[in-house]
Amino acid sequence: MTDAASSPFDDIRRLIVSMPGPDEAAIEAVRLRDRQLTKPAGSLGRLEWIAEWLAAWQAKPLPSVDRPLVCVFAGSHGVVARGVSAYPSEVNRQMLENFAAGGAAINQICGAYGLGFKVFDLALDMPTQDFTTGAAMDEKTCVATMAFGMEAIAGGTDLLAVGEMGIGNTTSAAAIYAALYGGAAEHWVGRGTGVDEEGLKRKVAAVEAALEHHAAHLKDPLEILRRLGGREIAAIAGAILAARQQRIPVILDGYVTTAAAAVLNAIHPSTLDHCVAGHLSAEGAHRDVLERLGKIPLLALGMRLGEGSGAALAAGLVKAAAATHRDMATFDQAGVSTSLS
Amino acid sequence: MTDAASSPFDDIRRLIVSMPGPDEAAIEAVRLRDRQLTKPAGSLGRLEWIAEWLAAWQAKPLPSVDRPLVCVFAGSHGVVARGVSAYPSEVNRQMLENFAAGGAAINQICGAYGLGFKVFDLALDMPTQDFTTGAAMDEKTCVATMAFGMEAIAGGTDLLAVGEMGIGNTTSAAAIYAALYGGAAEHWVGRGTGVDEEGLKRKVAAVEAALEHHAAHLKDPLEILRRLGGREIAAIAGAILAARQQRIPVILDGYVTTAAAAVLNAIHPSTLDHCVAGHLSAEGAHRDVLERLGKIPLLALGMRLGEGSGAALAAGLVKAAAATHRDMATFDQAGVSTSLS
Repeated sequence: MTDAASSPFDDIRRLIVSMPGPDEAAIEAVRLRDRQLTKPAGSLGRLEWIAEWLAAWQAKPLPSVDRPLVCVFAGSHGVVARGVSAYPSEVNRQMLENFAAGGAAINQICGAYGLGFKVFDLALDMPTQDFTTGAAMDEKTCVATMAFGMEAIAGGTDLLAVGEMGIGNTTSAAAIYAALYGGAAEHWVGRGTGVDEEGLKRKVAAVEAALEHHAAHLKDPLEILRRLGGREIAAIAGAILAARQQRIPVILDGYVTTAAAAVLNAIHPSTLDHCVAGHLSAEGAHRDVLERLGKIPLLALGMRLGEGSGAALAAGLVKAAAATHRDMATFDQAGVSTSLS
Repeated sequence: MTDAASSPFDDIRRLIVSMPGPDEAAIEAVRLRDRQLTKPAGSLGRLEWIAEWLAAWQAKPLPSVDRPLVCVFAGSHGVVARGVSAYPSEVNRQMLENFAAGGAAINQICGAYGLGFKVFDLALDMPTQDFTTGAAMDEKTCVATMAFGMEAIAGGTDLLAVGEMGIGNTTSAAAIYAALYGGAAEHWVGRGTGVDEEGLKRKVAAVEAALEHHAAHLKDPLEILRRLGGREIAAIAGAILAARQQRIPVILDGYVTTAAAAVLNAIHPSTLDHCVAGHLSAEGAHRDVLERLGKIPLLALGMRLGEGSGAALAAGLVKAAAATHRDMATFDQAGVSTSLS
């Protein structure tokens, strides 16, 4: 076991227990302003909730989304050798070049909504160990990768959408969920980028083998992360924590990104209070995960691409919600009657 | 009955039977390109469907959304005298001024997504007749208002989001649905902008009175429209038809806007093939209506504001979907492997 007093994970645990809470005064300010805006109370539904959520975690009575940022973390997975993906690991680097050239789906979505976009290469040429026969990462690597994820958002943003890219990483995510929540591997494994029936069987077998191999070490969520995760998942966990410290609200992408969130949630449920689920993925078990996390996704468009695409679309909604709250006229300003009386 | 050979509605019916269908070659071109884009097949879910839908109705193999437009039609309702709304009819003009000054929710959403915005005042100072005691409009007015709605979009657009504003118009929409689909008035009546319990009872009573008063004349959908509708609902019906003729895909807003669509659907179901439901309204019966129309909403955010707000948010999604399809790199262009082989 690694949860001894000297574990490299201790700093992470200390960070989690010292995280800031919501700014109640800012929430109250949003509610007060909302009641004065030229619309019936409650008529903007979740857009009103978004404004409160932004205020709570930005700690600003008038929340704003002026520098939204999409961060995509890319990792390479040893388990790909087990034939769990429809694509070879070479695609990782090819897609990074595609991101850099502006040719991927996420580039177009960021362009459409004016979102900043950064990609982080997490040692793509050094795949994690195949987690069916060993730990994906040692403790030091896992903590260092989380720390890298924390630094990644240091350039400043007021709304962070996190996503990932990594051939084989839906197998890693499925293993993490199975370890955290129990249940059969079949329940957590889906087709990812589109494996065939045989590939699906290999994914299930890989998750089962991993659970058996690591059975004695799956009590601690951070141990689950380092043993079954990927570098991109560890980095996303770090980015989520750093965003909380820096008062940046976070939009989670789909099935793989949510695995990083699920690890944090298992350490302490309030760890994700500053996070919203951007979308419901087409990967079957994502619905189950979001229910366990108590997150209602903003979108449900049957997407399963990853690369932050669902979170980025949701960021477009959040941007519009923030603009609506901030810039609408009040009943007084517009001279609009508030009721029949 | 008014469906005699000389009805002013004849031109509308003729228009409907002569409407253009989907461009199958354009759909095929989109599917062909989609298979070459740097993403797993099907991974963008409804975004891929949106690209096909745009192509089908724009009749363009590479669809585009360069001039999206939100049109809001505003009407005044005689039935407001029955105490069916939480707001007085004066709010109609006050809100039009708020639109013009850029202070309403819809202004902010259009600003966030770069959507054009036009508002049409449909004789706001001349409310329709109280439909509990007579027809809301005579035939000539109804047809002229539909024709006005057709002209409204003549300025050119490649994606039309339609919405409405009109104190009392959820009562009108509920009456239209009850006449089209049967069932108790209670099923179709909701709280609209937020009437209290007593107001809700008055809305139900108004719909029941209207159904009784017009009982002998509710076979023809266009008769239902002129007897129970409002000018904004008639104009939206016209705009939907004109958009089809001009090959402009349409995004429908919520409960009231969908009433115009439901009238057209009742004349011929294919009339709405170029329309997508922008969102699921919080107005309870909207889900039932969308199921009857076979429309799966793009968004479900608990909104019930009207003024095109749900359709405009959905237009932001459609814009991103079009950009993604048009501007992504192909596997060949990006040098990305397409599979393990």
